[in-house]
Amino acid sequence: MAAVYAQAVQTLIDELGRLPGIGPKSAQRITFHLLKLPTEDAERLANAIITAKARVRFCEQCFNVSEDELCSICADPRRDQTVLCVVEEARDIIAVERTGEFRGRYHVLMGAISPIDGVGPEQLKIRELLRRLGSDTVQEIILCTNPNVEGEATAMYLARLIKPLGLTVSRIASGLPVGGDLEYADELTLGRALEGRRIVD
Amino acid sequence: MAAVYAQAVQTLIDELGRLPGIGPKSAQRITFHLLKLPTEDAERLANAIITAKARVRFCEQCFNVSEDELCSICADPRRDQTVLCVVEEARDIIAVERTGEFRGRYHVLMGAISPIDGVGPEQLKIRELLRRLGSDTVQEIILCTNPNVEGEATAMYLARLIKPLGLTVSRIASGLPVGGDLEYADELTLGRALEGRRIVD
Repeated sequence: MAAVYAQAVQTLIDELGRLPGIGPKSAQRITFHLLKLPTEDAERLANAIITAKARVRFCEQCFNVSEDELCSICADPRRDQTVLCVVEEARDIIAVERTGEFRGRYHVLMGAISPIDGVGPEQLKIRELLRRLGSDTVQEIILCTNPNVEGEATAMYLARLIKPLGLTVSRIASGLPVGGDLEYADELTLGRALEGRRIVD
Repeated sequence: MAAVYAQAVQTLIDELGRLPGIGPKSAQRITFHLLKLPTEDAERLANAIITAKARVRFCEQCFNVSEDELCSICADPRRDQTVLCVVEEARDIIAVERTGEFRGRYHVLMGAISPIDGVGPEQLKIRELLRRLGSDTVQEIILCTNPNVEGEATAMYLARLIKPLGLTVSRIASGLPVGGDLEYADELTLGRALEGRRIVD
């Protein structure tokens, strides 16, 4: 068995298998795909990795990904400086931006509180968030962490921390997804949807 | 929207999104994972791609992946030269090797006949297979292509081509997976299992 794959092939499978969401089967599949590709196509991927690592850093203010000191959102003077949307990961910014509903700025925590994974508040960019709240013109904080155990715990923690500062703290709504179906909703989501019901006027 | 991601980030997402089985969401997730990694870890992946492309080629005889002219199986004199197992992809060799049931050699077609995808017999390593059958000491061919439309068509095509040469041609059995459940079997598989039933003695 051990001798079947050439060493360089096994190394590539192993490296790909370390990526999130890529199991051993996918790693194998991708490896053979890369081996069949023209060399320049495969090298374009390798170079994209190297270039991204060399060029991209995190925004000094909000920890979004950026090629400059400040990300394009923090550097944009047209963005509302009074509202701050707190997210877990930089990729969550895209999700919020896509809604077109938010014109404020962001703060990326770079994770969520998760004792099981050994992530406590001190591993997150919470100190940096508090520093921004002290000096900034922020009036409202929208806690936009994921609606799961870790995200809720993080939101609770932050709410308790920030409320005493006299700022408005809000949490995104949980409920049925638009286009969803009551029949297929899990009881927790439906419970939240009921709890968060709004008066129709 | 366009300005949210730094260019190098978008390039990496695009390149990852070209890999098989990786959609835009996974590509995004992997990109942010790579950006958070220490640079040397991300570069290890980039280098594994470059090294594999530089070192790995296809075995001149069977088209398995190899770092030498002949792959480790073709170069192994202990492998039975009278039986040839024909597979679609090099990765299928691993699946067969894992069974420990086969001690012969392989031939990789590098695909399957699929008119929809524009793959005809001439795109596959069939000419090379026939050349091996002419000069080799092969007595039996096991058609080990996938049990789907393309794999079956390829097996049929090969059987019709090879049988006149006076060789034994066999096809792997279709049926219920071991540990499977009748209740959950699709009717095609169960039909095949019935068709391929064996007398118990």
